[in-house]
Amino acid sequence: MIGRIVIDEVRPRTPTGHPAKAVVGETVPVSADIFRDGHDILAARVRWRSTDKDGEWAEAPLHHVGNDRWEGTLEATALGHHELVIEAWTDAYATWRHKVTTKLGAGQDLGSELAEGAALLAARARKLDKEDREQLAAARGALLDESMSNWDRLRDALDVSIGQQLAGPASTKETTRTKPYPLWVDRERALYGAWYELFPRSEGGLRATAHNRLPAVADMGFDVLYLPPIHPIGTTKRKGRNNTLTPEPDDPGSPWAIGSPEGGHTSIHPELGTEEDFAELVRAAQSREMEIALDYALQCSPDHPWVSEHPEWFHHRADGSIAYAENPPKRYEDIYPINFWPSKDSDRVALWEACRDIFLHWIDRGVRIFRVDNPHTKPLAFWEWVIPQVRDRYPDTIFLAEAFTRPKVMAALAAVGFTQSYTYFTWRTSKWELEQYLIELTQGPVADYMRPNFWPNTPDILSGPLRGGGEAAFKIRLMLAATLAPAYGMYSGYELLENQPASETNEEYHQSEKYEIKKRDWDSPDSLAPWITTLNRFRRDHPALHRLRNIRFIACNNDAVMAFAKVSDDGADTVIGVVNLDPHTSHEATLYLDLPALGLAPDRPFEVEDAFSGRSFTWGPNPYVRLDPSEPAHLLHVVSPSVDAP
Amino acid sequence: MIGRIVIDEVRPRTPTGHPAKAVVGETVPVSADIFRDGHDILAARVRWRSTDKDGEWAEAPLHHVGNDRWEGTLEATALGHHELVIEAWTDAYATWRHKVTTKLGAGQDLGSELAEGAALLAARARKLDKEDREQLAAARGALLDESMSNWDRLRDALDVSIGQQLAGPASTKETTRTKPYPLWVDRERALYGAWYELFPRSEGGLRATAHNRLPAVADMGFDVLYLPPIHPIGTTKRKGRNNTLTPEPDDPGSPWAIGSPEGGHTSIHPELGTEEDFAELVRAAQSREMEIALDYALQCSPDHPWVSEHPEWFHHRADGSIAYAENPPKRYEDIYPINFWPSKDSDRVALWEACRDIFLHWIDRGVRIFRVDNPHTKPLAFWEWVIPQVRDRYPDTIFLAEAFTRPKVMAALAAVGFTQSYTYFTWRTSKWELEQYLIELTQGPVADYMRPNFWPNTPDILSGPLRGGGEAAFKIRLMLAATLAPAYGMYSGYELLENQPASETNEEYHQSEKYEIKKRDWDSPDSLAPWITTLNRFRRDHPALHRLRNIRFIACNNDAVMAFAKVSDDGADTVIGVVNLDPHTSHEATLYLDLPALGLAPDRPFEVEDAFSGRSFTWGPNPYVRLDPSEPAHLLHVVSPSVDAP
Repeated sequence: MIGRIVIDEVRPRTPTGHPAKAVVGETVPVSADIFRDGHDILAARVRWRSTDKDGEWAEAPLHHVGNDRWEGTLEATALGHHELVIEAWTDAYATWRHKVTTKLGAGQDLGSELAEGAALLAARARKLDKEDREQLAAARGALLDESMSNWDRLRDALDVSIGQQLAGPASTKETTRTKPYPLWVDRERALYGAWYELFPRSEGGLRATAHNRLPAVADMGFDVLYLPPIHPIGTTKRKGRNNTLTPEPDDPGSPWAIGSPEGGHTSIHPELGTEEDFAELVRAAQSREMEIALDYALQCSPDHPWVSEHPEWFHHRADGSIAYAENPPKRYEDIYPINFWPSKDSDRVALWEACRDIFLHWIDRGVRIFRVDNPHTKPLAFWEWVIPQVRDRYPDTIFLAEAFTRPKVMAALAAVGFTQSYTYFTWRTSKWELEQYLIELTQGPVADYMRPNFWPNTPDILSGPLRGGGEAAFKIRLMLAATLAPAYGMYSGYELLENQPASETNEEYHQSEKYEIKKRDWDSPDSLAPWITTLNRFRRDHPALHRLRNIRFIACNNDAVMAFAKVSDDGADTVIGVVNLDPHTSHEATLYLDLPALGLAPDRPFEVEDAFSGRSFTWGPNPYVRLDPSEPAHLLHVVSPSVDAP
Repeated sequence: MIGRIVIDEVRPRTPTGHPAKAVVGETVPVSADIFRDGHDILAARVRWRSTDKDGEWAEAPLHHVGNDRWEGTLEATALGHHELVIEAWTDAYATWRHKVTTKLGAGQDLGSELAEGAALLAARARKLDKEDREQLAAARGALLDESMSNWDRLRDALDVSIGQQLAGPASTKETTRTKPYPLWVDRERALYGAWYELFPRSEGGLRATAHNRLPAVADMGFDVLYLPPIHPIGTTKRKGRNNTLTPEPDDPGSPWAIGSPEGGHTSIHPELGTEEDFAELVRAAQSREMEIALDYALQCSPDHPWVSEHPEWFHHRADGSIAYAENPPKRYEDIYPINFWPSKDSDRVALWEACRDIFLHWIDRGVRIFRVDNPHTKPLAFWEWVIPQVRDRYPDTIFLAEAFTRPKVMAALAAVGFTQSYTYFTWRTSKWELEQYLIELTQGPVADYMRPNFWPNTPDILSGPLRGGGEAAFKIRLMLAATLAPAYGMYSGYELLENQPASETNEEYHQSEKYEIKKRDWDSPDSLAPWITTLNRFRRDHPALHRLRNIRFIACNNDAVMAFAKVSDDGADTVIGVVNLDPHTSHEATLYLDLPALGLAPDRPFEVEDAFSGRSFTWGPNPYVRLDPSEPAHLLHVVSPSVDAP
């Protein structure tokens, strides 16, 4: 049954009924369609609370923004499960006020409106404190005083402060209320953070990584150090260098072929180090205010202990053998996929619990961030089960979905619980497709529950402008990733401009680090590390870049130049990015700024400062920019909201 | 909990959970997002049945059309309540077939695929009849025959007919099924029909209308004769001619000021005739295969019997008087709005039942179509209750919502049950806005449950090009209304090109028939009646125009020329409309037809015939048209799908 007031199309929400998402302290947009029959004036609000702690309800008003859409914001202050409800009611005072002022303005007889206003004030007076009650009584008295003019009788009752006293529903009976919509609140790192991916075996193991490479990565300003699987690697059907089927004896194999007689998903590859070495790495990260992220890849090499201990957890061929992974005609004979639906349900329960316990094992060892490998090839029902199993115990856990698949599957993974998602950013290169994609991610329905993590490269993906590109291309793509999205990451070697592809048509790297150990000259004078350090420091210093939904694209008259602005939740920080998307040519453009939308006066110049060049500019609404491939981006913040005109 | 397969965003549906809509015999598009983890091949179908009669399930396949969207159609054959479910399952045979043929094509070892295919066939053979089982057994035998080549072993198992036998889910356990989605099935008149509105008092009453005017309206090809309220009219605060507050003694008053001492909503105005005269009108309509539609206007003149009998059904002012209708500063003192929420719930129940009984009263007297006045000023909850109250007893009842209000309110009225809706057509005049609006109405979410009824004019609305327009404007707007939408209507006087506005800014007519009796010369030689007769005859003869969702706009190189095509459900009838939207100037255009989409060969000429001129044209994919204001539209049908090239 429909209520007296219709409240529909509530956001934030997921299409599947799973929780929408926010982080602590984030200003979260809330909106709904709200309407009723007739011409009475409505009022509405959002109320929310933590349900873990049976918390107090907070509330904020919603405002009509046109076409029966109402908008407001909420801000959650605690981790964990929350709920929100939208409430709407007929605002009897506002309706009366509109009616009486319209009649007054039209010079019409007020009829019994004065007495009706007095009755309205009397009915509401009971709920107010003494001082407000007295103000209301005086206003009511004036309404009923026939010795005065209509205007004098109405003056007090139409006062703004009376309207404020009468805000809110007169009674719960008059209020239409939605069902509760669930909202999961993460810590801020779920939304905002810079990731760095490296293979610890290339750095000499876990302890060497902790002591040598991690400090340098920390100095570059990264927040998360993400490691591909650190577990023992199988030898059966091991892949050789360049993904060949004929490995040399010293080829290390792919870290994703998990498991050997030395252990599986809860073990550490002996060549990387010991449990204590891992603990040392976690401690080293913590001491630099970084975190370690581990890979969570649910597949087994033929040598994984589960294969012999739990053959019922794998797919069996008609000939009795265990099926290796394949997507015909591609074959991955060094990997057995897991069968998440064994025929006996008790086997399924044991399997799913074992998979959950991998998370718990590493959480016990100080890990709270997991990059989940290929989640789209595992059942959505498994993720729907396992993520709350972990997250309800450790609400600071972060799950990044490495799903490069169809858009609806990626959205469904986010809806059932993944904290963050890899995206199509890598393949969005022109201005119109970047803008369209960002609008989808930041304003579309998925913005309520899917958080992007932008990667210009991964060990699997060397694509787009990086393939033929030099330093300019690497700067452009990293600038875009790091400023368009609050979470981004890069795979090591990016700073050294590595870009030799496996082939013209293969997006992988030549001599991929997945199959061999790499030695790199981190001290190369050509390294982008200093530039990256500047970029990451600016990100940290500017809360405007810690948010996703606040992006606003800036019109400009050159399709090779993309510009955008972000304003922090509190309005105090305004960042403007301008990027020359063409790594080969200088481009000029005029920008068309919407200054009031950036919190700036429309008619006064203001000063911006560029993080890369250190230069300052005095800008008006239509600034001119020129960007050369040698420094293809401006990373600006508004230094002073208004400066004296020159 | 999410299923093994996700099925989401099912259409048709309403956002509120009320039934979507179809008419008997209509081809209804059905679609859903359907996907699962991994690479296995899915299959899906829609099943539907009448729930009134606990009917047999019918089913039809859904096909993947891209981006995980699946589409198909259903067709209901009975009136009343239906339900539909979407089912999806992993197609084990198709998955096996894809895998084995890909491996075969890549020259790979088939491993145990042959044995697995044999097991698959064996598992399914049990459910088939003897002949099919034998075919399957032979195919299975070949698969296992190691003496043959792989290709010979597979030949029978890969045969298309085997795939057909194995279509459908292997077991209900493997099938993911949505909840049932409700669907209400109306008779065809709910979707398709030409309406004519007249004031019977201007024609000399009900009997004179039956004998004089109705035959002429029937001859023009209209299906529904719609009468404004025929009830006694109040005298208190009666409006005079041109909506004045100072009526002359012989001014008849607005028919919407319903009720006098002579009766209310179930009475007939004595000046219009008797119950027997009304019965005569109903019989006359039936004899011409027309129907009478009555106005259902829930408001009362101050003289309505309910005012004294049920003062609790009205709003009371502080001074004890009953409140007249107003939308400040506008006042409607000849009308009391009804208070649908009296404070006592027993009063509410009595009121709502009395309102329902008005429908039942006229249904008893042969009426099945109601044009509901201003439904958006009455509670949605009332319509949600009263429409099923009537429709479940008389499923052939049609409710047309006369709501010219905000889009979400109009959609909600349709969602809770209105059969048809007035629209913004009257205010959509340029090509881009007509096309955008039609795409919204025919393909957007509202197409599942909101059926437009297009009116170029009503007694309240003389707008747009008609105001300054001559015959060309009247032809253009009627052509658009009658061909873009399967249901359309016009208010009498249109054929005489009446277009004197109340003022430059007032959309009403000067000397509106709402406040006075009009005498017209129906035999005027300038009447559009012959042209309208041609238009309506063409509509009747062409089933392509009996449907809403089949419209397809045709690109053309002149923004003053709009072209579109409609193909009937069975594909046998193709109609093309071309309209010069400019009533003042001749326009030429080249059309760009998508011939295969119209069921025509892409490379052969075809013949079309114009209903207005009677001329035939031989067209190819890019026909040239020239339309003069004297005959501003082509109303074409494809006479022969291919003709010999000249």
